[in-house]
Amino acid sequence: MLSRRSLLASAAASGLAVAMPRLAAAQTVGYSQFVNPMIGTGGHGHVYPGASVPFGMIQLSPDTDNARWDACSGYYYDDKTLLGFSHTHLSGTGASDMLDLLVVPAIGEVRIKPGTLADPEGSYRTAMSHDQEHSRPGYYSLVLPESGIRAELTASARAGLHRYTFPEGKDAHLLIDWAHGFRNYDGSATKIIASSIELRENQVLVGSRQVRQWAQGRYIHFAMKLSQPAASMTFYKDDTEITGATTYQGQSLKVALHFGHGLKGPLLVKVGLSAVDIAGALKNLDEDGLGFDFEAMSGQAAAQWDTHLSPIEITTEDIGQRTAFYTALYHAQLAPTLFCDADGRYRGMDKQVHQLEPGKANFSTYSLWDTYRALHPLLTIIDPPHAAAFAQNLIEQGEQSPSGPVIWPLQGVETFCMIGWHSAVVIAEAIHKGLPVDAKRAWALYRQLAFGRNTPGLNAYRGFGYIPCDLEGESVSKTLEYAYDDWAMSHMAQAAGDYMSAAILRERSRNYRNVFDSKTQFCRPRLMSGQWALPFDPRSMGHDSKRWWDYTESNAWQATFLNQHDLYGHIGLFGGDAAFEAKLDALFNAPSDLPPDAPPDMTGMIGQYVHGNEPSHHIAYLYAYCGAHYKTQARIREILKTQYRAAPDGMAGNEDCGQMSAWYILSALGFYPVDPVGGVYVFGSPLFPQARVHLPAGRTLTIRAEGTETKPYIESVTWQGRPWSRSWISHAELMQGGELVFVMSDKPNPAFGFDITDRPPSFQFS
Amino acid sequence: MLSRRSLLASAAASGLAVAMPRLAAAQTVGYSQFVNPMIGTGGHGHVYPGASVPFGMIQLSPDTDNARWDACSGYYYDDKTLLGFSHTHLSGTGASDMLDLLVVPAIGEVRIKPGTLADPEGSYRTAMSHDQEHSRPGYYSLVLPESGIRAELTASARAGLHRYTFPEGKDAHLLIDWAHGFRNYDGSATKIIASSIELRENQVLVGSRQVRQWAQGRYIHFAMKLSQPAASMTFYKDDTEITGATTYQGQSLKVALHFGHGLKGPLLVKVGLSAVDIAGALKNLDEDGLGFDFEAMSGQAAAQWDTHLSPIEITTEDIGQRTAFYTALYHAQLAPTLFCDADGRYRGMDKQVHQLEPGKANFSTYSLWDTYRALHPLLTIIDPPHAAAFAQNLIEQGEQSPSGPVIWPLQGVETFCMIGWHSAVVIAEAIHKGLPVDAKRAWALYRQLAFGRNTPGLNAYRGFGYIPCDLEGESVSKTLEYAYDDWAMSHMAQAAGDYMSAAILRERSRNYRNVFDSKTQFCRPRLMSGQWALPFDPRSMGHDSKRWWDYTESNAWQATFLNQHDLYGHIGLFGGDAAFEAKLDALFNAPSDLPPDAPPDMTGMIGQYVHGNEPSHHIAYLYAYCGAHYKTQARIREILKTQYRAAPDGMAGNEDCGQMSAWYILSALGFYPVDPVGGVYVFGSPLFPQARVHLPAGRTLTIRAEGTETKPYIESVTWQGRPWSRSWISHAELMQGGELVFVMSDKPNPAFGFDITDRPPSFQFS
Repeated sequence: MLSRRSLLASAAASGLAVAMPRLAAAQTVGYSQFVNPMIGTGGHGHVYPGASVPFGMIQLSPDTDNARWDACSGYYYDDKTLLGFSHTHLSGTGASDMLDLLVVPAIGEVRIKPGTLADPEGSYRTAMSHDQEHSRPGYYSLVLPESGIRAELTASARAGLHRYTFPEGKDAHLLIDWAHGFRNYDGSATKIIASSIELRENQVLVGSRQVRQWAQGRYIHFAMKLSQPAASMTFYKDDTEITGATTYQGQSLKVALHFGHGLKGPLLVKVGLSAVDIAGALKNLDEDGLGFDFEAMSGQAAAQWDTHLSPIEITTEDIGQRTAFYTALYHAQLAPTLFCDADGRYRGMDKQVHQLEPGKANFSTYSLWDTYRALHPLLTIIDPPHAAAFAQNLIEQGEQSPSGPVIWPLQGVETFCMIGWHSAVVIAEAIHKGLPVDAKRAWALYRQLAFGRNTPGLNAYRGFGYIPCDLEGESVSKTLEYAYDDWAMSHMAQAAGDYMSAAILRERSRNYRNVFDSKTQFCRPRLMSGQWALPFDPRSMGHDSKRWWDYTESNAWQATFLNQHDLYGHIGLFGGDAAFEAKLDALFNAPSDLPPDAPPDMTGMIGQYVHGNEPSHHIAYLYAYCGAHYKTQARIREILKTQYRAAPDGMAGNEDCGQMSAWYILSALGFYPVDPVGGVYVFGSPLFPQARVHLPAGRTLTIRAEGTETKPYIESVTWQGRPWSRSWISHAELMQGGELVFVMSDKPNPAFGFDITDRPPSFQFS
Repeated sequence: MLSRRSLLASAAASGLAVAMPRLAAAQTVGYSQFVNPMIGTGGHGHVYPGASVPFGMIQLSPDTDNARWDACSGYYYDDKTLLGFSHTHLSGTGASDMLDLLVVPAIGEVRIKPGTLADPEGSYRTAMSHDQEHSRPGYYSLVLPESGIRAELTASARAGLHRYTFPEGKDAHLLIDWAHGFRNYDGSATKIIASSIELRENQVLVGSRQVRQWAQGRYIHFAMKLSQPAASMTFYKDDTEITGATTYQGQSLKVALHFGHGLKGPLLVKVGLSAVDIAGALKNLDEDGLGFDFEAMSGQAAAQWDTHLSPIEITTEDIGQRTAFYTALYHAQLAPTLFCDADGRYRGMDKQVHQLEPGKANFSTYSLWDTYRALHPLLTIIDPPHAAAFAQNLIEQGEQSPSGPVIWPLQGVETFCMIGWHSAVVIAEAIHKGLPVDAKRAWALYRQLAFGRNTPGLNAYRGFGYIPCDLEGESVSKTLEYAYDDWAMSHMAQAAGDYMSAAILRERSRNYRNVFDSKTQFCRPRLMSGQWALPFDPRSMGHDSKRWWDYTESNAWQATFLNQHDLYGHIGLFGGDAAFEAKLDALFNAPSDLPPDAPPDMTGMIGQYVHGNEPSHHIAYLYAYCGAHYKTQARIREILKTQYRAAPDGMAGNEDCGQMSAWYILSALGFYPVDPVGGVYVFGSPLFPQARVHLPAGRTLTIRAEGTETKPYIESVTWQGRPWSRSWISHAELMQGGELVFVMSDKPNPAFGFDITDRPPSFQFS
């Protein structure tokens, strides 16, 4: 495996190639075969089934809908009609955008309106079924039952390639819908600020648009080449035919490419995209050097996936688990996405065009509120070059952004999605783990956020030590998450040598205490007056949900455990280990009912534990801190078994750009980063009898857990052949490689991890 | 008195005239006769004896020294030689600057070097004695024993007039030393960045210089006219004669004006100054329209003083007390000083030239760390137009200043002197008292200070809730004073309608608690770790005075009572009334010894109460809050009697631009603003059997305290003829006018002010 790591390392060193190693390393194992990209396309998983390379710019995928929560990815498994195939998709999000440049292959009469799921009549929507649908990493195909057209899709880093095989003897055309995009949930259209389409020599179609959807005002340009010429083209503006020009401008532009009966064999359509300009899109189209060679391109994509799936080898007899695991590893490497052109230009967070320094890349689609928890930690183990590149890139994006440190950057635009500034966590973790990230530069950026930014909420946070619920919505969750970000920033300051600021932020990170009500033992909304808001029901979203929620996609049950960094201080609030353990038990055993206004994200419930949404993700590991590690083991095993299935609706909730999958991967390996910044992992209950993790510099971490299939409990542990009484291990230790052996049992061993000295460290600068 | 108030009001309305009503109102009483400006020129009072009009730009006064702490004003009573007469002086400060344009009248050989106090030989220093020295408001005269020259000085708002009567038959000259200024305490010269002198037509001398002394880089220009022509002039650069030009430039420029034996009668020298330019200085010179008429000008100055001294009429048989009182009222109106030209131009805090809007004025020399306590509150009673103009001007200066809200602005430069941002207090008080000050504009300026400014100290204050003593010097005092400024800013925010910020700051203003050690019952230096620094001695300046002090010109004894706004919260920290009262008793009864490194400011000690410096000024009034008001009465009377005397060394400490005097005036009247922002006054022990305070709109406040000369205790009080059981009264009540009668006793009445409901409000938005 050495060569694979070296490959990645050199890819990282050469910058742009980070996201797209050109060679399929001979040593890699064909794990792509174990991936089923359909997992999570149903339920509330929100993933797309189409073609992308690891961290690629293009996600060429079918669109079944563009206007509702469960179709955030443009595709929902249960939908019965198809719109067409577009080039950009979000993986597992709960808000949406993108779906750029819809290509609709069809026969006969040209239909230019998209219709709706409910009323597809007369539109270009066509029936679809999963009978003749195939998806694997980097490849997607579908035969459309109404027309008989076979559509196949693949991608390279910056280009998408379509292959359409039309039934012989039919009048073939493609409709290109440049007004297509993710609509608002109320059905109102994507707002196109301006767009254009131009027909150039040799039937090269190019176009530009600026879209104001989730990302307000992002730019996207395309270039399209055809393997066979169209007999003619018809341009439409606002669904009316327009002629007499080669360039058209407007807000709703479409073009029909008429091939009549003249196609000889499959029609290949290649598309390059760029957020910079059309010239960039054209270069991106040609960058892979593979022209219209579909097999070469899909083969290269598969090889790249094999490379990216090979860092972890698991041994299991359970095909469902194996599929779930490698599909998770696949989903964990779809985002962040490459967001720079072949020539090194990119659209920065200031919406200006920048030129990358050699050896660097720029990325987009950082779902940080989710991914700081497990995805970025996972990458620090299996792909340190990308982990470092993302962390450093987040600093650069924050420097460029008019709003400073990034929250949820999408295609050069800050969406301000969710709460907190968890980019700080990703950066602090990378710094703490010794990745090449510029701590001083990071701290120069975040220092202003930590101390200087002047908003009512932040002022209240600093002034009261909490955000009053009569000031701002989601005040409890914000207080708790700002506290964690303070912890992250304190590490950043420490690394930058600003010890004083580090100490201040470390202290301020204990602000979580100010929303904990020791009487009810819940984190509760608190008024400016200092009093707890009434009425209080731990299942409710807040004290006055008509006005706003006090919790972010959660309620007091989950928020009460929203502490990742000062567990011993936290446990003290409850009155000690026993009370804390009892409260955790109560969480998992509470009735699972939620009020009617609960958000759809709150799924995957075990009691009031909500695995389908991120605020719960670390909670089952918290038993380790009160000495009841066996309860962590039991709960983790339960979650692994009940919340993930190898089926389209097999995800308990939104995949969230890799977070739900990364939880599974790490938990299945047997450990999880409750506090990513702290750099330690708490043991859970390893799912496989053996797993091997290939680390940098040729090291291998081997995890054994013989008999674990029927024995969920840890009897004892050895590390490097010696007894290991702790319920945790550090990142530095893991990264040495070696043997971590779990002796499993079908009965709990309450003594394991019970001693104070065996419990995980917390609130420590290590 | 109506017309006087109306005059002031209309003067305020007409702007520039604020500082210089042209007419001597016929109704005013000649209280100037009771003023002795020599009080405070000795001891550590630091005042100057020369001529100024109320709040005037010019302070034309003799200089005996320019290089040591007790000569901050340029004059020290015990000095035996004189340098000459210069035009600008600070009144009672502990840091110094100014002394612009020294004029040295002499006979015989020209001596151009200043010499020193210790070695005057061969220099232009000349012997001086107090035998033929006279000082009264707006007038100063001295006969120099060596030469027999009589020097007389007077001033209008922007010009100074000298009258020199040379002995007949002597070869007379004036030396003009344009390199003179306040030196560093080590004796090194004032740093002149650049200066120039030019001789214009009709022997008008003009010049400019930029000085980097306390105020780093202030500009000053002069214009000088003579009533009789000089026979010749000799220019010197670096003490070497230079010729052949009319303009000279350099860092040390002087000029000798030779009159030979040709003078006919007294020589008059008139000088205008400007921080803007020479044209401004020339206009300022001529503005008063009085030419060389010395009697008219000194008469006008006396009349202006009579006007400004007339708001308070006291009845007393004690001539010493009467002198002390009216001299205090005189000293209380020397600063802030006018800092704008006759044409409305002025040098702003950005060092740029600005033009005033009609009806406005600009001022300098705001010794805010001192004067927020009693001087500005006094002015809200006796001179609301100036109180409002100062508060509004502080907003404008903060808007102009590159460092934002002002701290100690001097001549268009922020000196950053002392700690905190007490301009906030002056502004908040003015707003609270209903003066015409723009609250929204103020809050827009201070909001950034409250929440946005990003310095290690402020970050620590907001993060830890205190400033750690291992981070910054004077951390205890800073924490306490920042807390009080938070209180002031919370009122500002409230008035501007930003209720949330008001609530945050109100809460944050309780940060004083974080430096209170309940075990020792002292405010103590605290480490970043949260622990109290060791060793601890309540008399010491700090735990490691080699590094820095932890207290600002104070020690733990005074700092422990540095709370002006949340007294009931503060008392709670001690454990209640009895403990707090005992601690106050302990303060006044402790041995008065101080460590060797204590600053010279800590004078006027009663136990460890330090009346000579400002942090103690409110403390004797605190007994009112624990129900032991009779102890306030006793201590106030003691301080009034022992800390002020009608003698050159009669001030207990630095006069500090009016603060020491304002304390005396208010306390002698019988009340004091423990919390200026809160707008209430705590009773003390009225000094005079009767005092009448003339208020706006013709109202009069009459305070009676029959027999008070021998009866320091309050037996009971009536207000408007009705019993008044409270130990306090509000500003709004006082400003209605009426009768406040104290029934005095020679025995304490512990019942007075004892009931909770009779104690002063604190920590209230009223």
